[in-house]
Amino acid sequence: MGLREDALALHKNNRGKLAVASKVKVDTPQELSLAYTPGVAEPCKEIAARPELSYEYTNRGNMVAVVSDGTAVLGLGDIGPEAGMPVMEGKAVLFKEFADVDAVPICLGTKDPAEIIQAVKWLEPSFGGINLEDIAGTHCFEVEEGLKKIMDIPVFHDDQHGTAVVCCAGVINALKLVQKEFTRARVVVNGDGAAGLAISKFLLSAGIRLDHLTICGINGILTPSNHAGHATREALAKLTNPSGRTGTLADALKGADVFIGVSVGNIVDREMIASMAPNPVVFAMANPQPEILPDEAKAGGAAVVGTGRSDYPNQINNLLGFPGIFRGALDVRARDINEAMKVAAARAIAGLIPEDELTPDYIIPKPFDRRVVPAVALAVAQAAMESGVAREPKTREQLEEGLRQRGLL
Amino acid sequence: MGLREDALALHKNNRGKLAVASKVKVDTPQELSLAYTPGVAEPCKEIAARPELSYEYTNRGNMVAVVSDGTAVLGLGDIGPEAGMPVMEGKAVLFKEFADVDAVPICLGTKDPAEIIQAVKWLEPSFGGINLEDIAGTHCFEVEEGLKKIMDIPVFHDDQHGTAVVCCAGVINALKLVQKEFTRARVVVNGDGAAGLAISKFLLSAGIRLDHLTICGINGILTPSNHAGHATREALAKLTNPSGRTGTLADALKGADVFIGVSVGNIVDREMIASMAPNPVVFAMANPQPEILPDEAKAGGAAVVGTGRSDYPNQINNLLGFPGIFRGALDVRARDINEAMKVAAARAIAGLIPEDELTPDYIIPKPFDRRVVPAVALAVAQAAMESGVAREPKTREQLEEGLRQRGLL
Repeated sequence: MGLREDALALHKNNRGKLAVASKVKVDTPQELSLAYTPGVAEPCKEIAARPELSYEYTNRGNMVAVVSDGTAVLGLGDIGPEAGMPVMEGKAVLFKEFADVDAVPICLGTKDPAEIIQAVKWLEPSFGGINLEDIAGTHCFEVEEGLKKIMDIPVFHDDQHGTAVVCCAGVINALKLVQKEFTRARVVVNGDGAAGLAISKFLLSAGIRLDHLTICGINGILTPSNHAGHATREALAKLTNPSGRTGTLADALKGADVFIGVSVGNIVDREMIASMAPNPVVFAMANPQPEILPDEAKAGGAAVVGTGRSDYPNQINNLLGFPGIFRGALDVRARDINEAMKVAAARAIAGLIPEDELTPDYIIPKPFDRRVVPAVALAVAQAAMESGVAREPKTREQLEEGLRQRGLL
Repeated sequence: MGLREDALALHKNNRGKLAVASKVKVDTPQELSLAYTPGVAEPCKEIAARPELSYEYTNRGNMVAVVSDGTAVLGLGDIGPEAGMPVMEGKAVLFKEFADVDAVPICLGTKDPAEIIQAVKWLEPSFGGINLEDIAGTHCFEVEEGLKKIMDIPVFHDDQHGTAVVCCAGVINALKLVQKEFTRARVVVNGDGAAGLAISKFLLSAGIRLDHLTICGINGILTPSNHAGHATREALAKLTNPSGRTGTLADALKGADVFIGVSVGNIVDREMIASMAPNPVVFAMANPQPEILPDEAKAGGAAVVGTGRSDYPNQINNLLGFPGIFRGALDVRARDINEAMKVAAARAIAGLIPEDELTPDYIIPKPFDRRVVPAVALAVAQAAMESGVAREPKTREQLEEGLRQRGLL
């Protein structure tokens, strides 16, 4: 059978991919009296007196809601909440299998950003974190920013920040390999949707200079006046292009050290790569068709090429990010996933490959590299503690012991 | 250790009682490509074309949200959503262990009935059913009635209807034992909160005559004028007491065949029982202290006594109802849990004990009787099909095969 038939069969035969499991037995009246009435009143009373004890007596501290409105599912667009569910279930499966995070897929029956914010706020007492997923670019910023202001648990939009973290890890190692300094590199990001803007912001957090970053949209270089009323675009254009220089993507690429594409296939050619600085790094992450195919990029002089695809080397895969990021945040009961934690995650992913093992075809760990989750989790937990958002600080030994108990270390 | 220490230890050692589980493996790139990108796009596209296929390709059809606002948790009152979570997790554990229903506990951060309705409506695309739980009596009717009007999946408030179904099953068998006809029995329900009103309504559905049912509240017999502005009380008072007869609980009990207490402990005495009709049935279900202790009731002449407690015979336990009711509703993808399905459930529970096995101490199955869930599920599924709310009708053989596959038959 082909991929289509196999995928449909897998989903149909199992009626989905996710289930609920009990951590306790209720086979006898005695067990029932502890897990349910009357014994269950005891943890209820404890939590009523101190609500933060919900992290001790319930599974809340390991529960993440994977929330979507189904408006930007994969490359399929606005297919509705029911149709988004296979992806959200898949995400929950990955959370569980890669990081022992219990994730519940929640596809909401509203596309209104204010209503999504309201819905998630009402869900807060039941969860330890919120993973936003596949919300259309026009709304995802509003939803995430609105929620981060009012929520006391981490809110993380993976399409933005997961992509940014993993992409940045790849850039760090690629620049090491071509012996260029990260903080001096000139970067062009093509794509001014959620992923492109998030990558741009994150590269600045990680140390790329404001005047070394050029963001391009469909009309070329983003300027403070062509942002189409989009607040995040405008803010980033003002930061990175205050003088309002204009030009096409081809103009932007001249002399650049790094190209990052999160746009559409086949819009970069060999000559454009050849116009970049010597030994350029090319991440052509459009799916399924990259901005330029790896062979073409190499023919143009690219020293390192990454894509979003599993059938080429250097896949920039979110799977390297979100499981460990949430594991680390939950392990210290972080109230946020902040920039410091994300930068720590990117460096931890990059750091797994020693400099002398870096090759043009191996600048980022493989998705199934089991070292990734514990490394990211430990780095993120540490950064949470250092940045003051950890409500349950732990020693390194305690964190490692926790990971071992989950079979992750 | 005592119950308190054991219960706290159980909850703390496990950090709650619930987890998520994957039904598929993602150990290889091939498995990943089917359960997640790119293969997952195929079921997404199928569901986008026909949203009802979410029941085929995702776990939605077996997913129930256990929704509470934490305002009426056990006997503890309004303890907040975080503190209600141990009960909701416990409920989800019972759903899973007794009926293989995947239930997710959702404790909402709002107590406003309109907001609860809105929140649950937004959750609809992700679930196959909604179990409302521990919502204060002042709001639970508004929430449930509001939701039943706008939801296309079953909405069931267990504190009302689960209690009513199981209580009614007990009444059916108790009356058989004392050789009185159900449709001729005079019943007094003491308690005009959610449970009392639901039991009253349900007994009428099941065949008790309007003029044979007396409902009492804290001020005695409910009349069309002393309902305190409570719409459900008013409607029931008009139905059952149109002439507006007044009196105390003691007055009401004179000559009654059945007493059902869902009120407070120690408010019925031996003399009141003695004033009832010969061989009266007494269900004193207040917890932990019954309206009258079984020994006292028997001394007053009660032929059958039931309570809510596990340490006396004839425990009227919701566990006999909700697992099988939801199993049956989900198995035929019912769009509602209607009166016919609830009556079928009550009769199925009662029917498990052959008439010649009925004794004063055994009128209702034990909570761990494994015959209950399949019997209730089959009866409920059948009633759903007959009443036209089943969207996936099945033969009896198909239903039984489904139960066998889940290890329930």
